[in-house]
Amino acid sequence: MKPELVQVNGQAVDALSALDRGLHYGDGLFETIACIDGRPRLLAAHLARLAHGCERLRIATDVAAIGREVRALAGWARAIVKVIVTRGDALARGYAPSLHEKATRITLRYAWAAEDPGMALEGIRVRIANLRLGENPALAGIKHLNRLEQVQARAEWNDAGIREALMFSSSGTLISGTSSNVFLVRGGRLLTPRLDRAGVRGVMRGCVLELAQAAGLAVAEELLSDADLAGAEEIFLTNALSGILPVRELAGAACPVGPVTRRLQAQLTARLHAPDTSGASAYG
Amino acid sequence: MKPELVQVNGQAVDALSALDRGLHYGDGLFETIACIDGRPRLLAAHLARLAHGCERLRIATDVAAIGREVRALAGWARAIVKVIVTRGDALARGYAPSLHEKATRITLRYAWAAEDPGMALEGIRVRIANLRLGENPALAGIKHLNRLEQVQARAEWNDAGIREALMFSSSGTLISGTSSNVFLVRGGRLLTPRLDRAGVRGVMRGCVLELAQAAGLAVAEELLSDADLAGAEEIFLTNALSGILPVRELAGAACPVGPVTRRLQAQLTARLHAPDTSGASAYG
Repeated sequence: MKPELVQVNGQAVDALSALDRGLHYGDGLFETIACIDGRPRLLAAHLARLAHGCERLRIATDVAAIGREVRALAGWARAIVKVIVTRGDALARGYAPSLHEKATRITLRYAWAAEDPGMALEGIRVRIANLRLGENPALAGIKHLNRLEQVQARAEWNDAGIREALMFSSSGTLISGTSSNVFLVRGGRLLTPRLDRAGVRGVMRGCVLELAQAAGLAVAEELLSDADLAGAEEIFLTNALSGILPVRELAGAACPVGPVTRRLQAQLTARLHAPDTSGASAYG
Repeated sequence: MKPELVQVNGQAVDALSALDRGLHYGDGLFETIACIDGRPRLLAAHLARLAHGCERLRIATDVAAIGREVRALAGWARAIVKVIVTRGDALARGYAPSLHEKATRITLRYAWAAEDPGMALEGIRVRIANLRLGENPALAGIKHLNRLEQVQARAEWNDAGIREALMFSSSGTLISGTSSNVFLVRGGRLLTPRLDRAGVRGVMRGCVLELAQAAGLAVAEELLSDADLAGAEEIFLTNALSGILPVRELAGAACPVGPVTRRLQAQLTARLHAPDTSGASAYG
């Protein structure tokens, strides 16, 4: 599926310089934003994460201007707007950034078909990825462009009935799905992996953590093992586009879709339909 | 420094599609090839590594055609030709490759000033990077486009007198420089890190390993620690452009440039000036 619309630095062109460091090194960041009825969902949280990532990578960009561009691009029905920000054209050969590069901004709008409600209702089937994520605190949490691990993990299966794969890190801790975050319910507590050594701090993850805390659930970000996963009473995944997806089958074994997941789904639906769904607080 | 010449898929254009998976995910590979007097040096080894990387990532490309293009681009004096091969334009949104994408090939030629002979003679000053490389056997060895770790490590210093930084992996083993491989001499043996969990299998590294073995040196690829580094009698770095660079200062401490390094430098010079310097054997 090709995008309906592509802009590079605000111009309606679909090509970018072959010198861009985003291409050469994956030196940049991205966001994938659900737009419904012309409104980019959780936009403030997406922009806050992008700003935080730019700070970590020392890429100077005008995030407020990106926000205006996303709003203008959101269309009128359902759409996905992807924003890529790179460090821009290389000013010299080699890895060293001069820190004087001019960032490149690429925005793409894709038509977004209504999702099968059966997935949120009945839950999804999930596998365990063979590939393990490398651990690097310097890059953990941010949504940077170095995504070969996800590409390789996603290429491990092509059974359309399997929706996602859970990934562990090189030291054996549970991190996330290939394009989702993961939550476990155990003994009445809501657990999700710490993302200080690998993984992406998902916007929907932040939203669900806030909801759960507001609802008085005991919530913890922890180092989680395969034993924690095996002992979970409920498992669900989160993603900016799909919200909460209950896991009904993990690596061939049935998982019950439980009451905590159902309650959070209901709260999330209410939250995402409320007028103020900026969700900026999770990314300072 | 801008390239003198850029080609995308053999056409003299300097722009590439904003849908390219090289940009979106770093889903591709690259080679940086020294060209002298119109001859791409160690071309067969570069092409063999590229072909191996394409196989690992399941990117279909005509490596022989790339070799012809590099030869045609090599110019007449000193030049650096960089080749990027990506999986090509995304056929759908998301990480999953369809494996029906059409690879994109980007070639860039840069003028290459003669290097200061003082570096090879006197040696270089090297620091230890703070950033540690993530470990991922699925991506180790190949020269893929996910290079944010190198960008971040290279951004740690801007003292022009420091040429390189040595990098350890997350589990604490020595891997490489930011854009070089590393060799230690200890007790008459030549040691270089195993690159099965992180790092790039350098073309010049392969060439030096072959030379050393041919010369009867005891050579080993091993897991090396900071203690091995501290106990080394000689340290040198290798890189496709620079050949062998002796380390004369590591993290502020003086290192002697020793006889094994000198002998290998002399052998390498002879080898690189011999008519057959294809060097294909190291990448099967």
